[in-house]
Amino acid sequence: MESPIPDYLRELLDRCTGNEQGAVADYIPELARANPDRLGIAMTTVEGATYTVGDADIDFSIQSISKPFTYGLALSDAGFDAVLSKIGVEPSGDAFNEISLEEVTGKPFNPMINAGAITAHSLVNGADSEARVERIREHFSALAGRELSFDEAVNSSEFDTAHRNLAIGYMLKTVGILEGDPVDVVRGYIRQCSLNVTARDLSIMAATLANGGVQPNTGERLFWPSAVRQALSVMLTCGMYDAAGDWMSVVGIPAKSGVAGGLIGVLPGQIGIAVFSPKLDDHGNSVRGVKLFERLSRDMGLHLMETPTLGRASLRSDYVKDGVHVFEVQGVVRFAGAEAVVRSIAEGDQDEDAYILDLSRVYELGDVARRMLLEVVRRLTLLDKKKVAIVDPDEVLPDPDAGDGVTADVFATVSEAMSHVKSAA
Amino acid sequence: MESPIPDYLRELLDRCTGNEQGAVADYIPELARANPDRLGIAMTTVEGATYTVGDADIDFSIQSISKPFTYGLALSDAGFDAVLSKIGVEPSGDAFNEISLEEVTGKPFNPMINAGAITAHSLVNGADSEARVERIREHFSALAGRELSFDEAVNSSEFDTAHRNLAIGYMLKTVGILEGDPVDVVRGYIRQCSLNVTARDLSIMAATLANGGVQPNTGERLFWPSAVRQALSVMLTCGMYDAAGDWMSVVGIPAKSGVAGGLIGVLPGQIGIAVFSPKLDDHGNSVRGVKLFERLSRDMGLHLMETPTLGRASLRSDYVKDGVHVFEVQGVVRFAGAEAVVRSIAEGDQDEDAYILDLSRVYELGDVARRMLLEVVRRLTLLDKKKVAIVDPDEVLPDPDAGDGVTADVFATVSEAMSHVKSAA
Amino acid sequence: MESPIPDYLRELLDRCTGNEQGAVADYIPELARANPDRLGIAMTTVEGATYTVGDADIDFSIQSISKPFTYGLALSDAGFDAVLSKIGVEPSGDAFNEISLEEVTGKPFNPMINAGAITAHSLVNGADSEARVERIREHFSALAGRELSFDEAVNSSEFDTAHRNLAIGYMLKTVGILEGDPVDVVRGYIRQCSLNVTARDLSIMAATLANGGVQPNTGERLFWPSAVRQALSVMLTCGMYDAAGDWMSVVGIPAKSGVAGGLIGVLPGQIGIAVFSPKLDDHGNSVRGVKLFERLSRDMGLHLMETPTLGRASLRSDYVKDGVHVFEVQGVVRFAGAEAVVRSIAEGDQDEDAYILDLSRVYELGDVARRMLLEVVRRLTLLDKKKVAIVDPDEVLPDPDAGDGVTADVFATVSEAMSHVKSAA
Amino acid sequence: MESPIPDYLRELLDRCTGNEQGAVADYIPELARANPDRLGIAMTTVEGATYTVGDADIDFSIQSISKPFTYGLALSDAGFDAVLSKIGVEPSGDAFNEISLEEVTGKPFNPMINAGAITAHSLVNGADSEARVERIREHFSALAGRELSFDEAVNSSEFDTAHRNLAIGYMLKTVGILEGDPVDVVRGYIRQCSLNVTARDLSIMAATLANGGVQPNTGERLFWPSAVRQALSVMLTCGMYDAAGDWMSVVGIPAKSGVAGGLIGVLPGQIGIAVFSPKLDDHGNSVRGVKLFERLSRDMGLHLMETPTLGRASLRSDYVKDGVHVFEVQGVVRFAGAEAVVRSIAEGDQDEDAYILDLSRVYELGDVARRMLLEVVRRLTLLDKKKVAIVDPDEVLPDPDAGDGVTADVFATVSEAMSHVKSAA
Repeated sequence: MESPIPDYLRELLDRCTGNEQGAVADYIPELARANPDRLGIAMTTVEGATYTVGDADIDFSIQSISKPFTYGLALSDAGFDAVLSKIGVEPSGDAFNEISLEEVTGKPFNPMINAGAITAHSLVNGADSEARVERIREHFSALAGRELSFDEAVNSSEFDTAHRNLAIGYMLKTVGILEGDPVDVVRGYIRQCSLNVTARDLSIMAATLANGGVQPNTGERLFWPSAVRQALSVMLTCGMYDAAGDWMSVVGIPAKSGVAGGLIGVLPGQIGIAVFSPKLDDHGNSVRGVKLFERLSRDMGLHLMETPTLGRASLRSDYVKDGVHVFEVQGVVRFAGAEAVVRSIAEGDQDEDAYILDLSRVYELGDVARRMLLEVVRRLTLLDKKKVAIVDPDEVLPDPDAGDGVTADVFATVSEAMSHVKSAA
Repeated sequence: MESPIPDYLRELLDRCTGNEQGAVADYIPELARANPDRLGIAMTTVEGATYTVGDADIDFSIQSISKPFTYGLALSDAGFDAVLSKIGVEPSGDAFNEISLEEVTGKPFNPMINAGAITAHSLVNGADSEARVERIREHFSALAGRELSFDEAVNSSEFDTAHRNLAIGYMLKTVGILEGDPVDVVRGYIRQCSLNVTARDLSIMAATLANGGVQPNTGERLFWPSAVRQALSVMLTCGMYDAAGDWMSVVGIPAKSGVAGGLIGVLPGQIGIAVFSPKLDDHGNSVRGVKLFERLSRDMGLHLMETPTLGRASLRSDYVKDGVHVFEVQGVVRFAGAEAVVRSIAEGDQDEDAYILDLSRVYELGDVARRMLLEVVRRLTLLDKKKVAIVDPDEVLPDPDAGDGVTADVFATVSEAMSHVKSAA
Repeated sequence: MESPIPDYLRELLDRCTGNEQGAVADYIPELARANPDRLGIAMTTVEGATYTVGDADIDFSIQSISKPFTYGLALSDAGFDAVLSKIGVEPSGDAFNEISLEEVTGKPFNPMINAGAITAHSLVNGADSEARVERIREHFSALAGRELSFDEAVNSSEFDTAHRNLAIGYMLKTVGILEGDPVDVVRGYIRQCSLNVTARDLSIMAATLANGGVQPNTGERLFWPSAVRQALSVMLTCGMYDAAGDWMSVVGIPAKSGVAGGLIGVLPGQIGIAVFSPKLDDHGNSVRGVKLFERLSRDMGLHLMETPTLGRASLRSDYVKDGVHVFEVQGVVRFAGAEAVVRSIAEGDQDEDAYILDLSRVYELGDVARRMLLEVVRRLTLLDKKKVAIVDPDEVLPDPDAGDGVTADVFATVSEAMSHVKSAA
Repeated sequence: MESPIPDYLRELLDRCTGNEQGAVADYIPELARANPDRLGIAMTTVEGATYTVGDADIDFSIQSISKPFTYGLALSDAGFDAVLSKIGVEPSGDAFNEISLEEVTGKPFNPMINAGAITAHSLVNGADSEARVERIREHFSALAGRELSFDEAVNSSEFDTAHRNLAIGYMLKTVGILEGDPVDVVRGYIRQCSLNVTARDLSIMAATLANGGVQPNTGERLFWPSAVRQALSVMLTCGMYDAAGDWMSVVGIPAKSGVAGGLIGVLPGQIGIAVFSPKLDDHGNSVRGVKLFERLSRDMGLHLMETPTLGRASLRSDYVKDGVHVFEVQGVVRFAGAEAVVRSIAEGDQDEDAYILDLSRVYELGDVARRMLLEVVRRLTLLDKKKVAIVDPDEVLPDPDAGDGVTADVFATVSEAMSHVKSAA
């Protein structure tokens, strides 16, 4: 069977392609020469499967899409406190290249505007501009899963016209946000923006964020979960420049665009998406990219506020057999799911002497859910003097120490657990 | 067994109570008289279970927490187009009671600031102020699951000092956003804010949003999913006034606070949470409420950007038996989950003549996932000339029309499906 | 002889009339019905001579031109401290009807925007709205030199559409700037704006400001000089709305416009000017009025920064006759003029025994100049042991007490003074 | 006799010296080392007399006080159109070193903030930075009447910390306001600011502005009157940073301060004033300087809105002798003065056959006054068939061509004029 997914993506592209307005960026000739008709899309799942349609293997400069990744790297290298003391997390309402500093602190509003991105760049480890840039290139290469290189023409052309970024750099120096030579930092930042990527690369980089910081193909942890959460939060509220609320309500997924026509989106736990289409709207976002994301969000139910029912039916069923009360738990179990199990036990008659928690259908157990189930084990054992066993063939509940000396007995099958609790009784 | 959840909440309360700064609202005597030491928390799951600790059954006026619910009601009554043409969705960066209108359109920035909330109130169906207020009271009562009534003392006191809201009302009239008499509309809005609720009520109201608009206890649909998505989006970006980005990155759940000390949060698909504690910080948010939410988010992994792994392990296993390839699908299956199944089939050898999709462990199948699985059925049947059956005892995939005249055969058990495909072969 | 001045004004009107853009105010029908072709100009000198051309005797509502006069009245009634604590003096850069309050203090930026004008209105003496309005009507009538009355149609129509002013009133109440009922104050303010005037009236009112607060025809003091200085300062920096700097550099005279098409200018010490032409530009200023003022400023050298030579040639000549040194002083003598006289004496040989200061050609002696000349008398008399006499037939230097027991001897003619100093010698 | 003026100034200094708050600028060590107790004042009249008290001959860097002079030079060198197209004239409300560019045009708000001053510097003639700086040094030297030189220590120290100015320079480059290399322009601007001056120098420079652009000692015209008017207008509305309206209403004279403690004021037609006192307030203005100007304005009646009575008593008297009507005109005669004369003639019986305008007491005749008097001559001669003569020994009315072939007959004395008109009759 041919996978229908590429067909689906192709159909999506067709529906989002028309006589769009907009124009390619033209502030340097290297970008102005881009073919406005290019259109590519790539998706990579958290399991590492990548689908592409169209111009997904064409090189273009990463530009501002580098911002969330460098921000994440700065959080690792300099630590949260240092980064948060120098870069805010508030949407600025301003266009992407304004000098937007918070009035009292002088901090850039957020790491998605240039002032914040330049600051984030400066907080990456490295003795000098060259070292920082190389560290970023290596990290981005690990994210993309291949060696990335610079577009030297774009790089030198951008530096020649970097007056606004130099203005920002000097202003950041003035207010004490930037250490070191502003010209050197800006030079490095511009080089970072000139890294060549493809839509395919970007989808894998985005999928790494969707996957909590672990590159889905190599399995390498490239960001801590806390850094991913922070970067995605900022992408959600500040990623699409001056219409954060509009993007949130219409599309509802963390995203970031670049002036060369790239646009990425991250659906936590599911996929990374990247579009490449150089025609830009007035906000500097890819025209077709935005249309595609709007369609994807509607069509695929990707909006973050689409209600998943993580709390429903975690308790698949319960039954009493041979005086043993068995609770079948299933799916992704987080607080609300664990609560359903706990409630059922707490509200029951509890005439039985033994209990079995069957977790064989659970494929993810959140931390709070884990603690709640262990507390159930502890209470049943110590307070209610019941026998308790857990069925957990996939070890979704490792280290079953319930506290107060109680450790749950774990078995691979229900029948084994049955034998145990009955013999113990 | 005693449920451990109240104990958990109690422990949470204890950890978040200290010598907080802040003070109760004092712009009217009725609020100034509030006991600053009150503290209650309530949680309601999407299945309708409610847990409370502390002062969760003390009445207080709903105040600004009415805003997202009235906004949702306005979306239903007046329609999205009408509401979006009059109220924006952008964070304003301003304090809650400023007159914040967008420069070009004159629209209030969002429905969480007073200007937007007054406008939303005016868009609720009703011949006059009285009718609108009664409609809101009835709707809020349905949300809370009990008859709510007004705090008449708060209501009349607020109206006597409603100068700023009257200023806003007249300004909205000036720019053509408000129809009707501004004084009448403001009177109704103030009455809406004086509805008495408890933390318990609010947690159920919030759980209705978490549950996609369906009241978890009565099962009544009170909002359309699209209205819930919109209201939650706006709460996320604009709900906590002038620090949207900070709230998003630290807490990461849609929330709304009121000046009487209430604070609600909504975790889509899981729970509604409400805190009541009258001491306010400089932003007008409950001091302890904010601390509790920060703790809850960290402790319970509630942050929206915490990565759930909805795409992992949807394909529980696959095996070949008697020349039939069986794919066991499980859990909440959305795009990424369906992709894993599709990929496995597409990449397989496909030596077998028959295929079974076992959905008996699936408890939610997203729309795009449904379409993808049906397309798999269609392709296998029509293009690859295979036999295909679906096992779906819970009817998570109703109406299995795959298109092109292909309808999947559905069975309650794998063995029935086996018999069918083998006999057909 | 026919005075050429009306001919000059007529010529000016002709040159400033063309196919102007702009339109009459149309927010109420009473203003929308104004004849856009009306054009009148009136000038009144500080001696009370009035010249008019065109529609200078057509009634129209005074509107915002009432603002500087009510401000002056508030300064008298409430005192400088009270007024300055409630109304700022800074240009706001905003359009005239915005709610512009200073961030920290909540004060309206200045008395020329509506928020400040409503506040100024509220600070005029009067038990209630009616009393304040009558006091204003009487004062304006005294300024114009005839009984003014209200345009009742404009008044009631404006009140019906006064939503923005009511918004401002309530906002001022909120921030504690306004005492009393905002609706009552706004009603009074709107009534103030509906007073009917003609260009002739306005030119006399403006001439009263030009004349330091004394009505040039009746001689009645209607404002203290300090209030005039304050009102003119504010007109200069804030009178023409959002282009204070442009008006200052191009026209350079204090001015104020009204939405019914009036526009006044004040040239301190010389004239009051009023134009009436209802077509307005985007700033709400009379199109032809602005053109006329630009022309007048250029043509008549009215710009405040045109350099008068008040310091030059105050010392007309000096000569020694019969051993007496006579200093002929002339013109308007202020600091720099007095300095020239003082310097000539101080730098002289001082061989003579006697000195005469001939002030018969002086027609104004500023306060500091007066003190300087008396100090000269004191020093010559006491320290240098000279004889000194003053010739002052017009008593431009009354009360010639030079301090330390020295009183200058004053005579009507030089020859009398001569006789005196020589006999004394 | 000792001139009392230094005594007056000394007394003024004593009254304005106390335990002021404030501190010397400390952003570079060279300024931080300034003696905070230094205090000097200098005044120069339009006739070139200079008075000084205290530390009036101590060198300090001119800093921002260079701005109005460089602006005037740019107006000369580049022309009004070019300068106005690149620098606005509106007060910005911002602190002096903010990047304040108008939103639509990108223009700096005005030439008194750094962005505008850097732009003005770039518009001075000169092939490169060095040439521009030398041209400015020479021009400033001509203004001060002595060779000025640079404070090299201040200059290099300021350039080392010039991050904000470099930020501004690059931003100006970005928006197309600045041509050439921003670093080069900023280097030149900083050098301009490091010119050493004394309070004495500054008072002479200010007096040149007071004197309409002519250096009072050398008589050299250094600015055109139009450039002076423009520079003074901008000083008045934008010179004292973010409190333009306050300065206008309290002090009311065009002024400019510098961060080294200098402060100049210009009283058009009278004097230039300079104070040197290094302690600065929060606005960056000299604390004692501001106090001195407030006192000077009040004490010496220097406020621009103090009403001079230029229109009063221009007609000293009129009398009929031997059938000839003689009008004695006096003082500074501008529009209002001429009007008084014209009116007297126009309203008279006109029984006489001959008229004499005696201008021997006039020491300045404005352009419009000149035209009005000539028109009187024309009308009396041509229309009323009268004999007319002018007495004008000082040639205040040169070129007495009244139009239509009428040329006034001019005489040195009234008796000569009498003989003429009677013989002609």
